[in-house]
Amino acid sequence: MAVNPVNGSGLFQYLEAFFENGISYQVFAVADTTGIKTNSGITIRTDDVITNLKGQEDEFDALVFACGDAMPMFSENASAPYNQDMMAVIATFGQKGKILIGHCVGGMLFDIAGVASGRRVAVHPFLKSALQQAVATDAPFEVDGTIYTAQTESTISALIDKVVEALK
Amino acid sequence: MAVNPVNGSGLFQYLEAFFENGISYQVFAVADTTGIKTNSGITIRTDDVITNLKGQEDEFDALVFACGDAMPMFSENASAPYNQDMMAVIATFGQKGKILIGHCVGGMLFDIAGVASGRRVAVHPFLKSALQQAVATDAPFEVDGTIYTAQTESTISALIDKVVEALK
Repeated sequence: MAVNPVNGSGLFQYLEAFFENGISYQVFAVADTTGIKTNSGITIRTDDVITNLKGQEDEFDALVFACGDAMPMFSENASAPYNQDMMAVIATFGQKGKILIGHCVGGMLFDIAGVASGRRVAVHPFLKSALQQAVATDAPFEVDGTIYTAQTESTISALIDKVVEALK
Repeated sequence: MAVNPVNGSGLFQYLEAFFENGISYQVFAVADTTGIKTNSGITIRTDDVITNLKGQEDEFDALVFACGDAMPMFSENASAPYNQDMMAVIATFGQKGKILIGHCVGGMLFDIAGVASGRRVAVHPFLKSALQQAVATDAPFEVDGTIYTAQTESTISALIDKVVEALK
């Protein structure tokens, strides 16, 4: 899942690693359209939109949340259908015991969705005190059960080997 | 400059860092079209194509070469107009003493263009012995005069602070 706008550095660190390791993927825009932008203003074309992932969760082993500059406005836009779909999809993947991966705000969304209870998560330092059921740490990344999180896009590189190992 | 296909992780590490630091940029596709793909298969829309950068070099302080899976085929496609334009643009930026930045094959292209003579460059390990006038090292990145190079997209993060410092 890629929010709009999405941090391109984060998104493509995941995608290029998956590509290089033969891990198949589809990119769903958390938006009404597959044409979204990076924080840096480049238009990218995703495979599909998030609403079409609902009900298709069993076709995937894992869900990746690619964070971006859409997120500082998330609380104002939480009622938008695409954001509600995103939260529903996170909850379904979590409830089915599938792997959840994300950086920056990712750990907080997994917490809000109620699927990271008691799990250690790495989140953006600003968000650490906002977590309810998950346990926010100061580590650059955390792997706890099926929850893979990185503090920011700058620490994904430290997490990615463990993600690839789990998905390969 | 982004080749087609381009490694999205490399390209967007530069672009998001520029965006976050208020450094303006334009992305030119090394192709006949602004619609190019990442290695990972995602279509991205660049601002313009490389042929339109020719003659406009004075409008820019620096040139970034974003490497990708187009490059293993470079020698077969060296005569394509977009590749000839790319080499001409590199040569012009270099001759004008502007900053050249790149990873992976970048250092080799700067060498071929004749604008890295005697400079230390970091290049993909496979290419080290192919350099003629530049001095390939084993460092993850190198800064020598106006030449900023990283071995691969995995070592751009170590170079990016120095790039930002130079361009800010």
